[in-house]
This record gives sequence, structure tokens and C-alpha cells, in this order.
Amino acid sequence: MRATLIHAARDIRVEDVPDPVLRQGTDVLVRVTAACVCGSDLWPYRGIVGTDEPRRIGHEFVGVVEDVGDDVRTLRKGDFVIAPFVISDNTCVHCRNGVQTSCENGAGWGGEDDAGFFVDAGQGEAVRVPMADGTLVAAPQPGDDAMLASLLTLSDVMGTGHHAAIAAGVGPGSTVVVVGDGAVGLCGVLAARRLGAERVVAMSRHADRQALAREFGATDVVAERGDEGVAKVEELLGGVGADAVLECVGTKESMDQAIAAARPGGRVGYVGVPAGGAELPIRTLFGRNVSVGGGVAPVRAYFDDLLPDVLSGAIDPGRVFDLVLPLDAAPEAYAAMDERRSIKTMLRP
Amino acid sequence: MRATLIHAARDIRVEDVPDPVLRQGTDVLVRVTAACVCGSDLWPYRGIVGTDEPRRIGHEFVGVVEDVGDDVRTLRKGDFVIAPFVISDNTCVHCRNGVQTSCENGAGWGGEDDAGFFVDAGQGEAVRVPMADGTLVAAPQPGDDAMLASLLTLSDVMGTGHHAAIAAGVGPGSTVVVVGDGAVGLCGVLAARRLGAERVVAMSRHADRQALAREFGATDVVAERGDEGVAKVEELLGGVGADAVLECVGTKESMDQAIAAARPGGRVGYVGVPAGGAELPIRTLFGRNVSVGGGVAPVRAYFDDLLPDVLSGAIDPGRVFDLVLPLDAAPEAYAAMDERRSIKTMLRP
Repeated sequence: MRATLIHAARDIRVEDVPDPVLRQGTDVLVRVTAACVCGSDLWPYRGIVGTDEPRRIGHEFVGVVEDVGDDVRTLRKGDFVIAPFVISDNTCVHCRNGVQTSCENGAGWGGEDDAGFFVDAGQGEAVRVPMADGTLVAAPQPGDDAMLASLLTLSDVMGTGHHAAIAAGVGPGSTVVVVGDGAVGLCGVLAARRLGAERVVAMSRHADRQALAREFGATDVVAERGDEGVAKVEELLGGVGADAVLECVGTKESMDQAIAAARPGGRVGYVGVPAGGAELPIRTLFGRNVSVGGGVAPVRAYFDDLLPDVLSGAIDPGRVFDLVLPLDAAPEAYAAMDERRSIKTMLRP
Repeated sequence: MRATLIHAARDIRVEDVPDPVLRQGTDVLVRVTAACVCGSDLWPYRGIVGTDEPRRIGHEFVGVVEDVGDDVRTLRKGDFVIAPFVISDNTCVHCRNGVQTSCENGAGWGGEDDAGFFVDAGQGEAVRVPMADGTLVAAPQPGDDAMLASLLTLSDVMGTGHHAAIAAGVGPGSTVVVVGDGAVGLCGVLAARRLGAERVVAMSRHADRQALAREFGATDVVAERGDEGVAKVEELLGGVGADAVLECVGTKESMDQAIAAARPGGRVGYVGVPAGGAELPIRTLFGRNVSVGGGVAPVRAYFDDLLPDVLSGAIDPGRVFDLVLPLDAAPEAYAAMDERRSIKTMLRP
């Protein structure tokens, strides 16, 4: 089959690789309908994370079950399934606590499963899925491309934006600031409004992203950054910071901005993978009683909440996809996202 | 009147100072019934925080209203009052948000009020209290020394332990670890049980403090520290960390221990004043979804919850006081706490 590999910084190739086969009784094989490129895939693409040898890449996909191991109980051939970006058994104590990203038997796409077998990454034609009952979530076959796109966001960005909002304690009446206008930040806007936020300030300098933020429910947009951006936020929010700030970037600058934008007693929910040197300034947090929570989003935990709203059309996070390319154009997908020509790019095998 | 001053590290003196008088219409004068020494007072005592010139010290006291400014509405001469460790108007937006420590007009004992007048510190015979309606909380005159002691803890340590528990999200059924066996840590044990925690592991190496922790409701005691202590906690809690960890010390070591003792998705509530170099390790937090919240405790916000339970005898936090000395023995009070001969020392003018 065809699959995407990263060979080195800015060297993405789509190559022939072995067809996956079932390895364990709890596996299924999934024929990928759609995959996509993640903001975190850009880290190795940009060379910020090194690539020692060629490896498969991609951790967001949806598809159709093609073959089923003997021990799989909940999935059948022909089921449409959504793959969260982490593999989990969904039964261990951490999964029961809603932290499937810390599953005792967990694994990553493109890595090895609990028995040491290679696991395909998401940007390919097919994937062997370990612990399929725990990992995958079945959904009705999408009726159109818009629904396909929205279901695909549950693999990562919609659940991740939701995690930021939950970690920041967003609830009815909250005032919210979202730092970051990538797909996760935009989904964070949508998640905050869905949870009842009254004011949602999107911090964005790009006209197309500002427009989508507003369509997702942002009540205000602030183009300024740093101290100037924080001053603007306070001006909008009656002279105080926000109840909740969603940090959806992961740099020191964005975290500092998020902390400064929170009111005393406010909460920062962060989901941006932390870049180098971004330790949290505890004295600043202490004096203002600003808490910081979040982390790698356990999106598997949020399907019960989010999937019904996607299926009903109450939310349409799939609008973050503004570019759809065939799988073989994966190099162009990475370039488009790297150059910020695309908010989020879908790959169709 | 007599009051306590710190002149330099390990140089505490009780001296004659001017009697306080009313300065603003919203002031009251309080004759101090009891004051005490705080763990944070030991920082300048130990020279960790420098002392440039002699200054008044102490921020926890209870007493009786002796004189009342013309604009005071809620207090009368003869009222017994408890002073939170921070002065606040209790009406500004931050106070209404329950973060009186960030009051827009706030001030500290031994500092200056909003009009620039000197404010007495707590370890003395009398105190001019600015913004008295906002700052002070009236309570029935205590009937005995035990009730006096418990009411005095609402000035700081009981409210601070409660803040740690609230920030850590303690609720019915929680598993809790308390790092720190000072008065705040011990009150944290009491607060966690009061909030419904099922398991409370107190980390303590001192027999007397272990005993009080158990009397306050600790279900387990761990004497080990660092990695060994964390391993012991996990063993006690079925192989996983705690839902909630109360960090009541403020050093890098204690914070690292607290973070390591939290389960994935767990919360650290911290109230230990952060000592030097204790930035938070964001990558560790991110990967395990451990959140960190808390800060300087807005104890004024917690009187509605805690005072009734103290008055009814449901909780008896005053048991942290194991030494009572006359005001003139303040130097010995500091020495006793510094040498850990006393958990918490009361001063009676």
C-alpha cells in the first residue's frame, strides 16, 4: 500500500510499504477514508524535532473496518470508525479516569503496540489498529464531505480544543480568551461557546482565521500580541483578565501571553505541545492565583459528549479543513500547512 | 503599645511603638486577643528574605473592636473579630470573584493602606484595620482557649489548607496526598476530609505531627520522601498516584514530589510560598495531564464555609497550636518554630 514517511526535515515522501495484516486477536484493519496533517507533525517537518531515520507519520484518520481479529467484540467489517490520536485499551485505571493518553497499555501510531508489533501511522491507505475495541469509536457512515471532515476532527483537533476548554474550567457565562488560531485554537473557540461561554476573544492576525473564529462563535478578535494583546483583552473584558484562557500554541511567548490574559483566580487550559524552555513561572502564578492545567488531550474520553453534537450538526468543526489533497500530495500538504496557506489539510487515499 | 519588629535575620524584638489611632472613616481599632507566627515569617527570620531595616511583623490575629470610624457599617465596639492575612475591600471585582488577595485596594499588615497610612502588623497589642467592613469577619466571643485557637487559624492556616484542597479539586471519594506537615499541611488534611476525601495520605517524618495528622483524619502516613515517598504513596493507592495533591511547603523538592505523587489527570493544589528556582516542569505536567493551581490563599473568601464548622466544633483546627507564649516572648516563639519544636506558636499580648 501507499503511506507517508518523513525522511528528514522538509523531506516528506509517499512510498510503497507492506500491506498491514492482523497480528493480535484484538486488532482490526482499517481502510483509511481520510487522514490529515497535525500541527505537531510540523515539528519534525521543520526540524525542531530531529528525524534519525525514515519513519511513518500521521496520527489522525477515519476509515472503514476491513478485517476483524477473533477477540474483537464491538466492531464489525464495514463499520465506519474514528481513530483518536492515541491507542488505548479504554479499560485500565487511567482510561477509566478519562486519561486514555496515559493508558497502561497505550501506544502511538507509527510506533509499536503492547506486544511489540509495528503499528501503521495514519497518513496511509490502511492501518492495523491494536486494541481496536478500546481505541476506535464507530460512527454512522458520513453522508457528505462536510460530515466526513467534522468526524475527522474528533480524531484530534476538536477533542483537543475541547480539552483546553475543560481544563480551563469554561462554563456558562465564562469570559474566555483563545491564544492560537490554528485548527486547535479555532476548535477551542467552538468548544468554549458549546460549553456556554458568554465572551470568547480569539487572538488572531489572519483575516481568514479571524472570519472562521467569528463563525465558530468568537465575540471578539484581537490581532495584537504580547503585552499589547493582553491590554486589548483587558479593555474588552471590563478592565480585568479572562476567567479562562485556552493556550493552543505551545511556545513560551504564547504561554506567557495566556497567563497574563487570565484574571486573578483564572485558569489557563493548555494543549499546545510545549516547545523548548517553557517552564511555568510559579511566582507569577502564585501571586495571582492563576492555575494551569491540560496536556496531551485524551480525546477518546470526549466522544460521548462531542460525537452526538457533530452528528446532529450542532457543531461543524470540519470547517477547519480548507484544503483537501490526494494522499500522494502529502509533501504539498505539509508545505501548505507550514507556510500557513492552509489551516488544516486533509489527505484522501 | 508593645509590638514585634524584625531587625535582621534571627533578630526579633518586642518594643514600644506608637499607639494606633483611626486615620480613615472606614478604619477600626482592634485590641489584639491573640496573634501567631506564620511559617512565612520564618523566611525573613532565617534570612532567606532580606530585612533592610527594622519593620513590624505578623499578619494573623484576632481581637476586640475598640474604636470605630464614622463610615464603618457592619462592626461595633466590643465585637470579636478575625483578621484575614490580607486587607481587602471585599467589594471590587477580584473580591467578588473570591480572590481577595488580589483586591484592587488591598494592602498588607505592616505595610501601607490605600491612602498611604502605615498599617500595624499583627504581632502587637493593637492594630488599626483599614477597610474594616471588608477586611474583618465578626464572630461570637470564644468561650474557651480551644475555640480562640480555632478561630485564630481562620486568619491564615485553616483557610490556606482549605485553599490547597479546593485548588486540587478535592471532593467526595477523592484520594489525597498532603506534602508538608506544618500547620498548613495539617489543616490541609482536615480540609480534605471535610470535603469528603476517602483517603488522605499525610507525608510526615515527625511523630507528633503524624499523630495530629491522624487525629485530623489522615488515613495513612508516609515518612519517606522524594522518589521513595512517591513509591510508597502509589503502593498505598493501588498502584496509581493521587487524584489530588496538596503542596504545603514551597520548595522545588516538595513541588516535584507533589507532581510525581499525582495520578495522570490529577491536580496539585499549592499554597507553599514558592522558594527560589522552583519553576514548574511543563513537559512533565503536559505528558501526564497534571494540573497545578493555587497560590496565596484568599482566606477571606472561605469564612462562609469554614466559620460555621469551627463554631459548631465540627472541625478543631486550633489544635495546631502546641505552644502559647506572652507577646514579649516573641523571640522565643520564632526560635521554637524555626527549630520545629513547635508546630504553631500563639502570642498573647
